[in-house]
Amino acid sequence: MNFSVTVLGSSSALPTSSRFPTAHLLNVNERFFLIDCGEGTQIQLRKHKARFSKINHIFISHLHGDHYYGLFGLLSSFSLLGRKNSLHIYSHPDLKDILNFQFKYYPLEFETVFHFHPEEMCGIIYEDKELIVKAFKLKHRIPSCGFVFAEKQKQRNLKKDMIQYYRLNIKDILSIKMGEDYVDEDGKMIPNKVLTFPAPMPRSYAFCSDTAFDPSIVEIIKNVDLIYHESTFAEDMKQRAYETGHSTARQAAGIAKLASAKKLLIGHFSARYKDLAIFETEARQIFENSHIVNEGETYFIENKLEKL
Amino acid sequence: MNFSVTVLGSSSALPTSSRFPTAHLLNVNERFFLIDCGEGTQIQLRKHKARFSKINHIFISHLHGDHYYGLFGLLSSFSLLGRKNSLHIYSHPDLKDILNFQFKYYPLEFETVFHFHPEEMCGIIYEDKELIVKAFKLKHRIPSCGFVFAEKQKQRNLKKDMIQYYRLNIKDILSIKMGEDYVDEDGKMIPNKVLTFPAPMPRSYAFCSDTAFDPSIVEIIKNVDLIYHESTFAEDMKQRAYETGHSTARQAAGIAKLASAKKLLIGHFSARYKDLAIFETEARQIFENSHIVNEGETYFIENKLEKL
Repeated sequence: MNFSVTVLGSSSALPTSSRFPTAHLLNVNERFFLIDCGEGTQIQLRKHKARFSKINHIFISHLHGDHYYGLFGLLSSFSLLGRKNSLHIYSHPDLKDILNFQFKYYPLEFETVFHFHPEEMCGIIYEDKELIVKAFKLKHRIPSCGFVFAEKQKQRNLKKDMIQYYRLNIKDILSIKMGEDYVDEDGKMIPNKVLTFPAPMPRSYAFCSDTAFDPSIVEIIKNVDLIYHESTFAEDMKQRAYETGHSTARQAAGIAKLASAKKLLIGHFSARYKDLAIFETEARQIFENSHIVNEGETYFIENKLEKL
Repeated sequence: MNFSVTVLGSSSALPTSSRFPTAHLLNVNERFFLIDCGEGTQIQLRKHKARFSKINHIFISHLHGDHYYGLFGLLSSFSLLGRKNSLHIYSHPDLKDILNFQFKYYPLEFETVFHFHPEEMCGIIYEDKELIVKAFKLKHRIPSCGFVFAEKQKQRNLKKDMIQYYRLNIKDILSIKMGEDYVDEDGKMIPNKVLTFPAPMPRSYAFCSDTAFDPSIVEIIKNVDLIYHESTFAEDMKQRAYETGHSTARQAAGIAKLASAKKLLIGHFSARYKDLAIFETEARQIFENSHIVNEGETYFIENKLEKL
């Protein structure tokens, strides 16, 4: 069961000759969720061999162009490629007007379904049997949302030989999978842990961009496996970060630490930095498992079994 | 005196992992004219070290997204970089509405001046002391314009030693530069060609995309030095070219031949072609000096002196 994120863009508002603006592709068991869609996202998707037809949900954090200008081209390409599936877009309401205006000239051949960020900018915005996505308010110059993608807790796995041994019926099986112990025909209690394997631990990914340092987000992303937090500036530009609603590498690391995250990715680098090593160095002073993102790299969150 | 064009994108509507959509950068003596602006143009401009501040005129052939979706990002970047100069955009009138709608959310910090393609889709759309740009109607599914950029004929150069030898005054100099002969104090006629060097021949570049095969454009681009003509398909898809308002490589070459062009560049290749050699092979059957474009390559038109 794959749970991974491929980083397609790592620059801030001004792309460079080698860095694209923001876009992340989350793979949850071969279903793909696109998070932000800066200019050139469709080119990066092709370069990294993503299958367009598998993308059915796009989450847009906020309406600065470097986070959504790639939608025009991507949606046009979907249409040219004969897409029929509905596309779900999770965004600020203005994006609906922007896309509707654009595509009134050359209508798309498929349906777009808009889901607006909750008014309080906090709450569940997507849920299926495996995954839940929550939005949370970030601190930026315009309304901006972070997202946390969390697998749901799976049921424990019943050991197959136990079915035959105890001659379990469907009702028994269901209750054991829910974690119940079993009482056999002789009235003997068989502990659930004898009957089952543990399920894998639910995995989670938090996307926090664009935002100034804001510890109020920690509660909602607590214990996340992987956090991506913007780090537009290094410590030398801390004041500029504050003024523009962005973060430094140390601040991103501070959030990861407060959230007890397992691993931190940092990106959204200002074009003024030619050498990105400073970001990693500064972040690691606060949170050891910090990494600058590499465009095109896929970051996997491995399955771990819950404790016996 | 530089007169060259750098090709920034060579794909048709669907970009590939290695080919960007259409954009050409014309350099006329270090003044830059951008022709079309597909998604990712600003990234390509940076990669090829173009100076954003030198681009003051953008010509958009038509309003299919692969020819203008890069404007949103490029104009935003101009603004972020503190641009103050007006930007002139030559396009179909709908583009003004599209850009105005987009930038009502985050207004640009500089003025955009729109110049619409002439109603008859034919005529002079730009002129200065060195250059003249004419639009001409192409044959596509929606209104589409080609452009021919032509240097004006320069005056002949007066040989410096003649000024002293004949003690020429300002009035004499001006009339000799205009091509007049000179009559000296003794009434002797000195032929203009004795007094002057020839001026370089005016150079020209024609951009023809998107379009079906249309010999009616030949008259306006007759004897052009360099012609770029779209070639979305090879001969195997001639029917598809016809149906979609595009051209084959042989048709592009046919236009170059009819126009007595000196050199042909072909591009706007459909993503279905992995190997582009077929385009060049087929074009050269009709017009020997045909070349598929390489993204990032600059094609120079050398100065040639007019005949003595």
